[in-house]
Amino acid sequence: MTTDDLTLYVGAFVDELVESGVVHAVISPGSRSTPLAMMMAEHPGIKVWMHVDERSAGFFALGLAKARQEPVVLLCTSGTAAANYLPAVVEAKLARVPLLVLTADRPHELRDVGAPQAIDQIKLFGSHVKWFTEMALPESSEAALRYVRTAAGRAAGAARTGPKGPVHLNFPFREPLLPRLDAPDLFQGGKRDRGAYVRLHTGRRNLDPVLLDSLAAELTAVQRGVIICGPQEDPRLAEAVVPLARALGFPILADPLSRLRYGSHDKELVLDGYDAFLRVPRVVEEMAPEAVVRFGAMPVSKALMLYLKDHSACRHIVVDADEGWREPTALASDMVYGDPAAFCEGILTRIGGGQARSSVWQQQWTRLNRITGEVLRSAAKREGALFEGRVFAELHDWLPEGVVLFAGNSMPIRDMDTFMTNREGALLPLANRGANGIDGVVSSAMGAAAAGNPVVLVIGDLSFFHDMNGLLAAKWYGLNITIVLVNNDGGGIFSFLPQAQEKTHFEQLFGTPIGLDYAQAVRMYGGIHQRVTEWNGFREAVLKGISGSGWTVVEVPTDREENVRMHREIWQEAAARVESALQEEWDTCD
Amino acid sequence: MTTDDLTLYVGAFVDELVESGVVHAVISPGSRSTPLAMMMAEHPGIKVWMHVDERSAGFFALGLAKARQEPVVLLCTSGTAAANYLPAVVEAKLARVPLLVLTADRPHELRDVGAPQAIDQIKLFGSHVKWFTEMALPESSEAALRYVRTAAGRAAGAARTGPKGPVHLNFPFREPLLPRLDAPDLFQGGKRDRGAYVRLHTGRRNLDPVLLDSLAAELTAVQRGVIICGPQEDPRLAEAVVPLARALGFPILADPLSRLRYGSHDKELVLDGYDAFLRVPRVVEEMAPEAVVRFGAMPVSKALMLYLKDHSACRHIVVDADEGWREPTALASDMVYGDPAAFCEGILTRIGGGQARSSVWQQQWTRLNRITGEVLRSAAKREGALFEGRVFAELHDWLPEGVVLFAGNSMPIRDMDTFMTNREGALLPLANRGANGIDGVVSSAMGAAAAGNPVVLVIGDLSFFHDMNGLLAAKWYGLNITIVLVNNDGGGIFSFLPQAQEKTHFEQLFGTPIGLDYAQAVRMYGGIHQRVTEWNGFREAVLKGISGSGWTVVEVPTDREENVRMHREIWQEAAARVESALQEEWDTCD
Repeated sequence: MTTDDLTLYVGAFVDELVESGVVHAVISPGSRSTPLAMMMAEHPGIKVWMHVDERSAGFFALGLAKARQEPVVLLCTSGTAAANYLPAVVEAKLARVPLLVLTADRPHELRDVGAPQAIDQIKLFGSHVKWFTEMALPESSEAALRYVRTAAGRAAGAARTGPKGPVHLNFPFREPLLPRLDAPDLFQGGKRDRGAYVRLHTGRRNLDPVLLDSLAAELTAVQRGVIICGPQEDPRLAEAVVPLARALGFPILADPLSRLRYGSHDKELVLDGYDAFLRVPRVVEEMAPEAVVRFGAMPVSKALMLYLKDHSACRHIVVDADEGWREPTALASDMVYGDPAAFCEGILTRIGGGQARSSVWQQQWTRLNRITGEVLRSAAKREGALFEGRVFAELHDWLPEGVVLFAGNSMPIRDMDTFMTNREGALLPLANRGANGIDGVVSSAMGAAAAGNPVVLVIGDLSFFHDMNGLLAAKWYGLNITIVLVNNDGGGIFSFLPQAQEKTHFEQLFGTPIGLDYAQAVRMYGGIHQRVTEWNGFREAVLKGISGSGWTVVEVPTDREENVRMHREIWQEAAARVESALQEEWDTCD
Repeated sequence: MTTDDLTLYVGAFVDELVESGVVHAVISPGSRSTPLAMMMAEHPGIKVWMHVDERSAGFFALGLAKARQEPVVLLCTSGTAAANYLPAVVEAKLARVPLLVLTADRPHELRDVGAPQAIDQIKLFGSHVKWFTEMALPESSEAALRYVRTAAGRAAGAARTGPKGPVHLNFPFREPLLPRLDAPDLFQGGKRDRGAYVRLHTGRRNLDPVLLDSLAAELTAVQRGVIICGPQEDPRLAEAVVPLARALGFPILADPLSRLRYGSHDKELVLDGYDAFLRVPRVVEEMAPEAVVRFGAMPVSKALMLYLKDHSACRHIVVDADEGWREPTALASDMVYGDPAAFCEGILTRIGGGQARSSVWQQQWTRLNRITGEVLRSAAKREGALFEGRVFAELHDWLPEGVVLFAGNSMPIRDMDTFMTNREGALLPLANRGANGIDGVVSSAMGAAAAGNPVVLVIGDLSFFHDMNGLLAAKWYGLNITIVLVNNDGGGIFSFLPQAQEKTHFEQLFGTPIGLDYAQAVRMYGGIHQRVTEWNGFREAVLKGISGSGWTVVEVPTDREENVRMHREIWQEAAARVESALQEEWDTCD
């Protein structure tokens, strides 16, 4: 292997990534990865983002790929560096985010012999990547350049073929590791005239017309049907599913990450308050469905999950664009692998198109949703201690259009479900809901900010702590991000669980109060820190963060026990209103 | 599965861990892991250490297990939490550190169906653990309790059987997750009268006497032999190998992690300056060995590695207590799996015991070592800018006995090799030399401190940054640790590599200056921070850190380019002295 072999081979690979549509590469410093790092820095088509901590790098790439829905490169050197990617890789696989993980490795003679920074990188990420391949050592024969360009195009294509996900290419390199940047035609090795060497074209899955005929007939016969839209990224779904719901007379229960709640489309049938009113046993009992049609991943609402389990005999159709099995209830009667928008259009055409079907069933759902919404909106904004749920109730009202709203896991995503209700102003809602980890959230949001739009991240203090290293990206790259740090000094969600009743060991094992003054961390990374005491100040601080330069942490100090109490009070209040409304209806029927 | 099943099953497991000698458990907060966490907190035999960041938790357990050479438990909940352990698990496997990794998991019906915090945890750590097993769901039949106690004893036994390493047990749990802490005989399920249910007894490998006879005969015939002791943990080796070296007339080239350099044993033949003098081509040429006997992992010295490669025809015997292949040179002629101390004693007995064999060969080595040592010692302490190597030259002179000296990777371990030379005062030298990562070093040192002795960690700024979350342990647990932060604002080691000549992209891809004011981080975690400007201040600060309460960062600001220059100057100076000494010898011979 000569320097020219190295230069031509790696140059061809990097060039082919660019030809395949790759724009962003997230790189961590290291020696063995020098050939790829140098060539990526040199290629005019690649934008390089450096990260010292590979775990943060992994999540940064995840967030960037999530916001762009295009493959982003991750590159690190050999050794435990690559092992730090595992959490982000796991999340990418489950959340269907396209990543190209490139790891440099020692050549074969230095493997499993105690050489420095040599670990077993073959299938390092196990079942958590879509595709793994061990690359050949660099050569510059025509055959080798055909091979390496094909591998680049195939990897990018595999990452973006639904279900999107991470792929892993392991590159053994021998010394010398420095490519010749002054070589002529640095990126021309093996290149064809026509641009990309190979591009993977993937079609959408279209269902058999016979199947659509029968499903359309069956759904038309259903009086009490429900459409559920969980977390999903397809921007076409909203336009396709709303007319279908209207024609079938079914309500749409829409998760905050479904992309149905925010924007200018018709939202008459898009329900956002079900997590509260499905906590009422009488609602669960009386609103028994005959059929459920579900799109996207499982929604965050536990009340919805229990509602479905309570009606286990009901027809339960899960539509997935590709494959997989996002069905934790084991209730599915039909698993449909077909393009969701095309599915909606196919059914709609067959049942006669634009005609709306109004029904008592549908009116009951929208009424329950309206009543619940009124209670939630007014209760969230009641005077008193700072209430965590109000963070989203406030953002709902005045967050500017076009912002990316990133929700942390544990409490924030649940509060988002309850309080970030339907609104006209479009925004991109994001969260890491593949594995729902509290790790890597800061970096994921930073990565989303790197895609270009301003980001507001709402995050709890444990999760913020977990990925503080991610803040370095804001300092280095001047990203526009505003972090709402909901600080209840510990693991707030555990206070909602049975564990909280077992007082022995609770604070030690679950509460875990960290007790840090995060203002110091924010200042260290060159950010603006503001602790708020009331909601006008909160609004001003967030809006200033979004419109200003640099990055901001708006800290909202709350109390874990008080937070549980207030959530329960609001749910009870909503339940009481819903119950009395049901009673009225009953009385009317009498 | 009832609560009683859960309580008895998990209680038996935890109790059997304690019976098997487990004392420390490092736990991260989570819900699914509640049964194990609660029972461990409740068991009087277990000391619980909490960590919010599972990556830091993993390395903390690694450091604790390294210092104690006994299995330490790691416990986390389901999801990406466990994925954060991978870097520490990889290091534990390669560095042979006993870890018991316990991951809680969703039960089978919630796997691969899009359930929250459910990832594929089966063989999550792939080839990087010694043993993986998927545990059964809790039951309390006699058979189940026999099974779970056996699994606990077997896991602890597997982790501590040489080669020591990590084992992984995955525990599916169904709700309810709360054990009954008020149950009678909480830890008595399946217990036998005699204490441990099963304990794994592992013998040491004793070699065939016939083999020892022939090796002894062959080594006696060797005039020019070298013994090499790399990183290893066996405290018996020093006492066994020194008499053997004396009897054979071989020098011992001893890595700083070999446990041969520090302590009161005879060190006449223990050489500590070879990394400098083996950089001199004439030395490499003239000191050609006939045979090499090597113990432990490969030493850090690259000069030594190149010396061995230059004499590839030489007999090369590698002795390993267990198995594995710690031989990156592919020069081994004999791989010997046998207890190293017993090997030394076996050979020694056969060649007639205590009689010393003095030879010109041996005198040449000790003379080279003496000359080099004189240059290194005086040059390191020359006036001028703060020189990174002097950190260890200083510690060498006045670090109190009994301290654990933990060296970071990249530059610190290399400077330790050069400047932390032989001394009477015993200390425990540690570093993460399995995969040589810069990740997790802060937490590893914290874990070593948790074992009880005061720790001094010498670490570069990139590595410190990578694991700043690890500082939380010092705040929470008041550990006695003094961190010498060698801050050259970036990746200092890259300046020694060919990459530094390629000025394009160097600072961006390799230098990576972070530019943080670490004093703020230290204050945030409640530590004492002191930036030193001269060496008296350095000594005072470190000694105060060791003897004081709380934890301290002593920051030594250095310059990357100046550091390369000074290292090269010192090596050249040593080379010049060595060359003139060789010339003198030559002249004498004339």
